[in-house]
Amino acid sequence: MLPQEIIRKRRDGEELGRDELEQFFRAYLDDMVTDYQMSAFLMASYYSPLTMDETLAITDIFIRSGSRLDLAAVSGVKVDKHSTGGVGDKTSLLLVPIVAAAGVRVPMISGRGLGHTGGTLDKLESIPGFRVRLSPMEILHLLGETGMVMAGQSDDIVPLDRRIYALRDVTSTVEILPLIAASIMSKKVAGGADALVLDIKTGSGAFMRERVQAEELALLLAGVGSHFNLPTVGLITDMNEPLGLAVGNWLEVVEVIDCLQGRETPDLMEVTYALAGLMIHLGRKAQSVTEGIAVARDVVRRGLAFEQFMRLVRGQGGDTSVVEETLRYRNASAIVEVTAPRSGFVRAIDARKLGMLAGELGAGRRKVTDTVDPTAGIVLAKKCGDRVEEEEVLCRLYSSTVPELVSYRAAAIRTFTISDAEFPRTGKIFSYFDSDTIVPWGDTASPF
Amino acid sequence: MLPQEIIRKRRDGEELGRDELEQFFRAYLDDMVTDYQMSAFLMASYYSPLTMDETLAITDIFIRSGSRLDLAAVSGVKVDKHSTGGVGDKTSLLLVPIVAAAGVRVPMISGRGLGHTGGTLDKLESIPGFRVRLSPMEILHLLGETGMVMAGQSDDIVPLDRRIYALRDVTSTVEILPLIAASIMSKKVAGGADALVLDIKTGSGAFMRERVQAEELALLLAGVGSHFNLPTVGLITDMNEPLGLAVGNWLEVVEVIDCLQGRETPDLMEVTYALAGLMIHLGRKAQSVTEGIAVARDVVRRGLAFEQFMRLVRGQGGDTSVVEETLRYRNASAIVEVTAPRSGFVRAIDARKLGMLAGELGAGRRKVTDTVDPTAGIVLAKKCGDRVEEEEVLCRLYSSTVPELVSYRAAAIRTFTISDAEFPRTGKIFSYFDSDTIVPWGDTASPF
Repeated sequence: MLPQEIIRKRRDGEELGRDELEQFFRAYLDDMVTDYQMSAFLMASYYSPLTMDETLAITDIFIRSGSRLDLAAVSGVKVDKHSTGGVGDKTSLLLVPIVAAAGVRVPMISGRGLGHTGGTLDKLESIPGFRVRLSPMEILHLLGETGMVMAGQSDDIVPLDRRIYALRDVTSTVEILPLIAASIMSKKVAGGADALVLDIKTGSGAFMRERVQAEELALLLAGVGSHFNLPTVGLITDMNEPLGLAVGNWLEVVEVIDCLQGRETPDLMEVTYALAGLMIHLGRKAQSVTEGIAVARDVVRRGLAFEQFMRLVRGQGGDTSVVEETLRYRNASAIVEVTAPRSGFVRAIDARKLGMLAGELGAGRRKVTDTVDPTAGIVLAKKCGDRVEEEEVLCRLYSSTVPELVSYRAAAIRTFTISDAEFPRTGKIFSYFDSDTIVPWGDTASPF
Repeated sequence: MLPQEIIRKRRDGEELGRDELEQFFRAYLDDMVTDYQMSAFLMASYYSPLTMDETLAITDIFIRSGSRLDLAAVSGVKVDKHSTGGVGDKTSLLLVPIVAAAGVRVPMISGRGLGHTGGTLDKLESIPGFRVRLSPMEILHLLGETGMVMAGQSDDIVPLDRRIYALRDVTSTVEILPLIAASIMSKKVAGGADALVLDIKTGSGAFMRERVQAEELALLLAGVGSHFNLPTVGLITDMNEPLGLAVGNWLEVVEVIDCLQGRETPDLMEVTYALAGLMIHLGRKAQSVTEGIAVARDVVRRGLAFEQFMRLVRGQGGDTSVVEETLRYRNASAIVEVTAPRSGFVRAIDARKLGMLAGELGAGRRKVTDTVDPTAGIVLAKKCGDRVEEEEVLCRLYSSTVPELVSYRAAAIRTFTISDAEFPRTGKIFSYFDSDTIVPWGDTASPF
């Protein structure tokens, strides 16, 4: 195999066989194909789309580049969940205790935040003592004992994706749907769950800004899942304004605790309950998605989900006393109120800009090696569609690290668009999809 | 400057400014931009065409990455020539003495052979003692004394192109016209000539197989030349069959000597005289191209060009006795005759295949570090359009290195297509071009 000939075929859109791809990627792992040859291959794939067969072959090579978690020792259906990432997206922290409280096993493997979106691991680690680096033995133990586990990915799961992702990040070759699919699905297949629920976010604060792109990725991910015997369904949801009220690690944990204790943020819980319904249905603890949603609401209302959350924190070494008394813990050293320059209705809140701003306050990372300020972030006092009076609070900025917090006020105001006209608030869920179809959420055609 | 942002803009076809390109390429030279980032940039440029402004900026950056030859100390107009490469293309060896005999200074910088095409330097070095590695002082001295010089490129001319070309070679990013233009023209501008004549070859044995591609490259090269005050004109010529009779280093030198002594190969001299006419006209030793061609024919007929060739060999340390008695020198250790399997007319000779075959006999390189067998190659006995009888000789194979020369006979026969029907022989020159226009060769619109 001549690497430049494989690259040329890729460049010219000649379909590569499984053997050719296997040789090329194996040689890359063995340092016989160089980073500069791989990056040429990746950039060619930006323009010359990989076929479904090529995508499946690459996913398979990714999976076989490392070890797989074997969860067979734990009984019951194990359901995982993955989100393509958004601003204020703390649904994972809600879903794990809710779905586990409904009796479905949830082995959730998550990542860290980068750019304008936060990471589930960073949020969990804002709870003192909470450990996310777990051995396979610990994962099996927790999953068996408490029915759930939230962990970071271990180094021996899909090492090839980690290497290629690092390369894509610095060569502007991230936005390639088949490679995104191979990257996500190889890790989910290797993670050992029996089924997967996806939350594909679309809008200004999402990776997929356009709805049509989000739909294309959705079908691709579900199709790859189906091929690898990992039943995969999901929702396409709105990420134009941040989800819920809090953006920032500990601030989001506090919002999660509030929701589990009955003080629910409507848009956040709309998305959470729908995803929970899918997971509970896939986990065979409900006959339909509608029933799954009802079960989810019930375990929250009865306090079972909050109990399960406490069990999660305790099980992974976290300090439960701070969960019980959030107000006395981890207050940022500075808080600034941002007020409305005029009266009207909140027409838009730019999720991307707000996420970047939270990052600047200390909540996010620019490089993977940066550390985060767990107390930093933004809490919205108004959401899209809300009436606001001049001088009324729009949001509050939190930070323990930036010196002149007040200087960020103008940037915060710029993320809001305030208009005179009232307008209808819309639902946050656009569509349901599986490997065969995409239908509007709530449509009679959906399998509810 | 964030390298991945430059790559993204390139990828998305957003025009990059001179400063951005300068920073990116400078950082590459300083190892702050990596090979894998450069290869992503190059592959993006395969799909997302560089604009003329970007091409000019890159050419300029290439030129300024090293030193420039200053030929101002030598009086008169200095005219260089460049060919995009073909099989049996020994025109440079003819043009230098012919044009110098007409009184035009010719400072010619050439390259080595790679793949199926031969290199002028390899051909020159098949003459014992001939030195092509010359210092700038030697180049100036020879140009002043004899009016001509043929040298390899020194390491300090356009070092950035050398590094990027090596990267393109192993990442399937060679076939990108604006980068080809930047690579060729930066070296020609840095080489210090006052004008340039190009021979853009097209056909099965050429790098540009399609005529339309060759025309696009021609206008691009002439346009870049014009921008850098290097008047550039040229011809688009046929490279479907090999040019002339000999393919292989010493064998081609012998054909050159034959032509200069009056035993002219028609197609080879058709192209040579036309290019010489352009060079002599550009060098202001003829009022028109037609007059330039007449001058060229005259200096060959009167033996002045051969005398000049002897002066060239002597000037650069070559052994002139072998030139005077070619038949007694450098005979290959084995010669095999290849005869026609049937009678008919030679319809085609596949130049690419024949060039590859000559390479296998020892005349070429697969890698830049390979050494060549100066005696190896192929001499055609028949050209396209010739009548051939069964068992008549089509060509002869020469080698001092391959063990079973006779085993290449079948491959040699396969490069010939013999048909029953006679057909008209066509001229080898398609068009003339300069920075403004391309016109059919001989057209009344051409500036003859």
